Amino acid sequence: MRKVAVVGVGQSVFGVRNDVTLQELAWEAVKEALEDAGISQKDVELSVVGTVGTRGYELMPSVVVNEYCGLVGKGPVRVEAACATGSAALWTAYTAVASGQVDVALAIGVEKMNEVDTATSLAVGGRAGNYLWEFHFYGTTFPAYYAFYATAHMAKFGTTEEHMAMVAVKNHKYAARNPKAHFQYEVTIEEVLTSRPIAWPIKLLDSSPISDGAAAVVLASDEVARRLTDTPVWIKAIGYSSDTSNFTRRLDYLGLRATRQAAEMAYKIAKISPGDVEVAEVHDCFTIAEIMAYEDLGFVEKGKGGLFIAEGQSELGGKVSVNLSGGLKAKGHPLGATGLAMIYELTKQLREERERGRQAPLRKYIGLAHNVGGTGHYAYVTVLTR
Amino acid sequence: MRKVAVVGVGQSVFGVRNDVTLQELAWEAVKEALEDAGISQKDVELSVVGTVGTRGYELMPSVVVNEYCGLVGKGPVRVEAACATGSAALWTAYTAVASGQVDVALAIGVEKMNEVDTATSLAVGGRAGNYLWEFHFYGTTFPAYYAFYATAHMAKFGTTEEHMAMVAVKNHKYAARNPKAHFQYEVTIEEVLTSRPIAWPIKLLDSSPISDGAAAVVLASDEVARRLTDTPVWIKAIGYSSDTSNFTRRLDYLGLRATRQAAEMAYKIAKISPGDVEVAEVHDCFTIAEIMAYEDLGFVEKGKGGLFIAEGQSELGGKVSVNLSGGLKAKGHPLGATGLAMIYELTKQLREERERGRQAPLRKYIGLAHNVGGTGHYAYVTVLTR
Repeated sequence: MRKVAVVGVGQSVFGVRNDVTLQELAWEAVKEALEDAGISQKDVELSVVGTVGTRGYELMPSVVVNEYCGLVGKGPVRVEAACATGSAALWTAYTAVASGQVDVALAIGVEKMNEVDTATSLAVGGRAGNYLWEFHFYGTTFPAYYAFYATAHMAKFGTTEEHMAMVAVKNHKYAARNPKAHFQYEVTIEEVLTSRPIAWPIKLLDSSPISDGAAAVVLASDEVARRLTDTPVWIKAIGYSSDTSNFTRRLDYLGLRATRQAAEMAYKIAKISPGDVEVAEVHDCFTIAEIMAYEDLGFVEKGKGGLFIAEGQSELGGKVSVNLSGGLKAKGHPLGATGLAMIYELTKQLREERERGRQAPLRKYIGLAHNVGGTGHYAYVTVLTR
Repeated sequence: MRKVAVVGVGQSVFGVRNDVTLQELAWEAVKEALEDAGISQKDVELSVVGTVGTRGYELMPSVVVNEYCGLVGKGPVRVEAACATGSAALWTAYTAVASGQVDVALAIGVEKMNEVDTATSLAVGGRAGNYLWEFHFYGTTFPAYYAFYATAHMAKFGTTEEHMAMVAVKNHKYAARNPKAHFQYEVTIEEVLTSRPIAWPIKLLDSSPISDGAAAVVLASDEVARRLTDTPVWIKAIGYSSDTSNFTRRLDYLGLRATRQAAEMAYKIAKISPGDVEVAEVHDCFTIAEIMAYEDLGFVEKGKGGLFIAEGQSELGGKVSVNLSGGLKAKGHPLGATGLAMIYELTKQLREERERGRQAPLRKYIGLAHNVGGTGHYAYVTVLTR
C-alpha cells in the first residue's frame, strides 16, 4: 500500500447554520481545504461525500454537493456510518489513494441537522440501533443508550457525575478559543451539574449539541504530497470495527468494544502503543463517552477514566492533550462532518499552527482521531504523524 | 494495484418481498454468496453495505444487516450512489482488496422499497436531482426525467416507441427464464404500446418496477482467489463518473455523459474496446435508457440505438448479448442491489453456468456491467473477464 498524506484541510463554522444550504456549507470547508493544499478542483481525481442526511431535506446530497463545489465527474460515492460518517469518508478516500487508483482525493463531510421538525428528529435520533426492538417497542432514544453506559460505569468503577462534568468544562474551555466552534463560551462544574436532566445521569450540558457543519480533507500519495507541501501529515493507519446493532447483545456497558478493536488494529498497523499518542480528538458525544474513550484507547486502564480527567491528564499538556478543538460537546457534532473535523484539528496541531493556549506540546508528533457511530455500532481510529 | 477476483455471488428473489425484513433479505443473498465462494463469515475481512434506504424504515441499515448476516465487526461503511449504489459497494470493496488492506471483502446490496406509503415514495422518487429547483418548483418525478431523454432521442434520431417497446419485450423474454426475476412472464409489443402512459412517451411497460431484493459479491485478492476457486472472474476495471445534479446544466438529453466517461475510463484501464464486449448487463431503468446505453457504451454509434435492437444485435447471441437476466425492467430494480445483481449474472455467464437459452456464446470471455444513478448523476462501468 502506498503512503498517503493529508495535504489540505478545511472546516466551516459549526452551529445552527440556517444562513446556508447543505451545498453552500460544504463549500465553506472545501474552499479552505483546496486553498490549504494549493490545488484546484481539476487536480482532485475523486470526491467522497459523507453525510447521514436524515435530518435534512436533500435525500441524495452527494451529487448536489459535488456540483456546487465544482467537482462534477469526480464523485463515485456517498458514504454513511452514523456519527462516524466523516471517518468513513476519510477511509474510503484513503483506500483509493493507497490502492494507486488515484493520486489526489477529497473527503467531504457535511451535515444539516436543523431542517426537520423536532418530532421527526427525535424519531431519527432514536434509531441508532435496531429499530424494531429498541425504538418501536422500548422507546429508547439516543441519550438513553449512553445513560446505560454511564450508570454501569458509575456502579462498577465509582465514576461520578462530577467526573463527567469535568469533561464538559474542559472541552468548553478549549472551544471558547476556537472561532469555528458551535459554543464559544466556558461552563462551570456547577452549571453542568444543575443543567436539565435528559436521561439520568446525562444532563443537558453532558450532551453534544445538534449542529450544522462541514469539514474537508485533501489526501495525496507520497510523491504528490511532497510536491505540494513541506508539512505533509501522514496517515499511518486507520483501524476500524463495528458491533452488534441489537443493544442487548453487547458484552457489557462499560466501554465500546468497537473502539478497542479499532484502536488495536490502528496501533498494530502504525507500530505504536497508546503511550506514544500526544494529542487526540475523541468522540465525546456525551461526556461519559470521553471517559470511556480514555480507557478503550488505552490511555489509562479500564475503570480509571474518571481519575484520568480529575488529575488533569487529558488537559493541554497532560499525558495526552484531548479535544483541544472543544470536542463534540462544545465544538459541535454535525454527524457527517465530525470525523473529518477531527482530522482538521489534528493536522493543525501536528503542523504546529495553533497559537499559544491551543497548541499541544509535541515531541514524537503522533496524533489520534477516535470517531464512533451510534453507541459503538461503528468505530474508526486514525493515527497521524509528521 | 493487486488483481481482484469475484469468487462468490448470491442473489435473492426480486419482487415484492413482504415476507422478509431488510436483514433477512440481505441474508438470502449473502448465504448464497458465501456458499458459492466456499467460505464462512470468519473469512470475510470487510463488509460494505449498499442501500439507498429512503423507502424502508431502517434508517441506519448497515449495522442491522451485518449483525443478522453474522458479520459483526467487519463493517466500516454503508454506501449510496442512488440507483448505482450496488456498483458503489462493489467499487469500495474492490478498492480495499486492490489496496492490500484486506484479502477478502464482501459487497452487499439490499433494498426494501415497499415499506413506505405511496405519497412518500413518490416524493422520494422525485428527488433524484436537485430538490429545490426540479422537484419543489417544477414537480419533476423520475419518469419525467427519462421522458426528456426519450423525446429528445425520438426527435433527433427518429427513435420510435416501437424501438423502446422492443427492449421491454426482449428483457421480459429472458426474465421469464430467470427464477429470481420480479416478473417471470413475457410481454408483446402490442401490450407495451397500449400500456398506461406515465410520462409520455414512457408507458407503464417501459418502466422498471419497484422491487425489493438483495445481491452479494465476494471479492478476493489474486492469491486467495486461486486457492478458493478454479473459476475466478477477474475485475479488470471499474470506471466511474458523475454529472451535474441540476438537470438544466446537462449538455444534452441524447445520452448520459457520465456513462460515456465511465466507459472510456473502464475500457482504457482494461485495455479493450467496445467491440470486445460479448455479454453485458446495462441500466434499463426505462427502455430508452437501454437504447442510449448501446450508444454511450460504444456498442453502436450515437443515434443508432433503435436500429441496434430492431436488428436483434442485443439479443442472446447478437453482437452483444444484453440483459440476459431480464434487466432492470423485468428482473427488477431494488436500488441498492441492482449493481451487484449485474455482477451475479455476468459471473454466471462468464463461468458458463447458465443453461441453454440463457447462456451467451463466449470466445473472449469479456463481460460488462453498466450501472447508473439517477439520470446519469452517477455511472459505473465494470469490465469482467475469465
